[in-house]
Amino acid sequence: MTLLDGREVRKKLLDDLKNKLDKLDRRLGLTVIQIGSSDSSNIYVKQKEKLAIELGYKFNCIKLDDDVLEDDVLSLIDELNDDCNVDGILIQLPIPDNLDSRKVLDRISSKKDVDGLTCINAGRLICNKECLIPGTALGIMDIFSYYNIDVSGKHIVIVGRSDLVGKPMFSILSNTNATVTLCHSKTKNLESITSKADILIVAVGVAKLITKDMVKKECVIIDAGINVVNGKLCGDVDYDNVVDIVSYITPVPYGVGQVTTVELLYNVYRAYELNKKD
Amino acid sequence: MTLLDGREVRKKLLDDLKNKLDKLDRRLGLTVIQIGSSDSSNIYVKQKEKLAIELGYKFNCIKLDDDVLEDDVLSLIDELNDDCNVDGILIQLPIPDNLDSRKVLDRISSKKDVDGLTCINAGRLICNKECLIPGTALGIMDIFSYYNIDVSGKHIVIVGRSDLVGKPMFSILSNTNATVTLCHSKTKNLESITSKADILIVAVGVAKLITKDMVKKECVIIDAGINVVNGKLCGDVDYDNVVDIVSYITPVPYGVGQVTTVELLYNVYRAYELNKKD
Repeated sequence: MTLLDGREVRKKLLDDLKNKLDKLDRRLGLTVIQIGSSDSSNIYVKQKEKLAIELGYKFNCIKLDDDVLEDDVLSLIDELNDDCNVDGILIQLPIPDNLDSRKVLDRISSKKDVDGLTCINAGRLICNKECLIPGTALGIMDIFSYYNIDVSGKHIVIVGRSDLVGKPMFSILSNTNATVTLCHSKTKNLESITSKADILIVAVGVAKLITKDMVKKECVIIDAGINVVNGKLCGDVDYDNVVDIVSYITPVPYGVGQVTTVELLYNVYRAYELNKKD
Repeated sequence: MTLLDGREVRKKLLDDLKNKLDKLDRRLGLTVIQIGSSDSSNIYVKQKEKLAIELGYKFNCIKLDDDVLEDDVLSLIDELNDDCNVDGILIQLPIPDNLDSRKVLDRISSKKDVDGLTCINAGRLICNKECLIPGTALGIMDIFSYYNIDVSGKHIVIVGRSDLVGKPMFSILSNTNATVTLCHSKTKNLESITSKADILIVAVGVAKLITKDMVKKECVIIDAGINVVNGKLCGDVDYDNVVDIVSYITPVPYGVGQVTTVELLYNVYRAYELNKKD
């Protein structure tokens, strides 16, 4: 069994990114819009800020009250779209229910959409065109690449159909010649499907959903879940009982979570490159 | 075994559409751009023209030489996008290799894109937002609906990852709570996957690819293939040998092919409705 160590992939990505940033003649700008201020949003924004500052980005977090008017959010996004000092824009999710999150996200210029959540970027991804891709999906692909895991021709089962992981993973992997099955909360007989997978990617946020009897011997497991059970971090996979039968697995922590934020900040550079082409 | 008769679904769709068109105060406009003039393109354009005229549309086919410059095609599309008498625009595919088909297609306004092939519409579809959807995919969904075949919770295997059928079917069905597997030319052990399907959708253009040993008893088969073998039309499924073990199947001819063009022309009405909202 080989552990897919996210820290190693993170290090490589950071080295690559810093090399690229060193060659630029200006600092890149990332603006986060945070609406309301739940504890978890505060934590996630802090993580991004910390790494952004380490990379020398101009980081700005605009905090809005959770009763902000949708039109005011849209106007703010318009301003940021037009601001040439802002390379990447990100809305910290979730946002309050009184706002139409799809409408708000789609207002972001597709070339500044560093979370890869606009419909345009989702469409360009499934059409196999150059675009910005959600960080977690990129991170998983970079883990495969770092450990020379070839996805072409493999049967890959994804559990979870989120816009951030499941759907973009489906698009990338189908376009990379994998045979992909997308499972979700309405899937019947989940184990009969997961147990056929050469590679199993799980991103649902249900602790230890995937047990030993649900995985094939020698399969590869990517666990993108982050859950807290009894004060301890764990993934969507019952790691301790699965680890002995798989060929590769990402641990939680120190797996996928290690690369997600780096990919997001790498996306600011990719957004800069996309905008330069115009 | 129940035959899924495309002619019945076609009749219902045409009745619905004619009812809607009767209430409009103007004729709808569909413009087809045909580049080069292969025999098969001529046939497909004629089919569309015939039905368009039956429906009272203003139909226009603009024929361009196959050495036309890309910029000239793009300018023509810009003109049509701005022409309020044109509700739907369609590029007859395939187009010559010297043109970037993705670039040309994406120039069409997403609200006039009656083939549903722009990246924007593909993205809106996977994000579950209102959009224009390729006619074949719509037709298959309307066949399910007409025959009360519930897709939610079913394991659906799609063979073929085209932008016109496989990919949009994947997006719609995943968003309708089906568990979907997308197979293609690089899929290994295809039969081990197709034989698990509750519903099997095939759209690859390989005559009789799907044989009896590749399908589960009592499954539903949608055959979107159209092939000519010894001068006779046949689908991608070995119909004669499969028909006795399935619960529902679309024949070829008189199956999916019956609804595709109607859905396309229905899309002109849907495009009109979308533009009206602005």
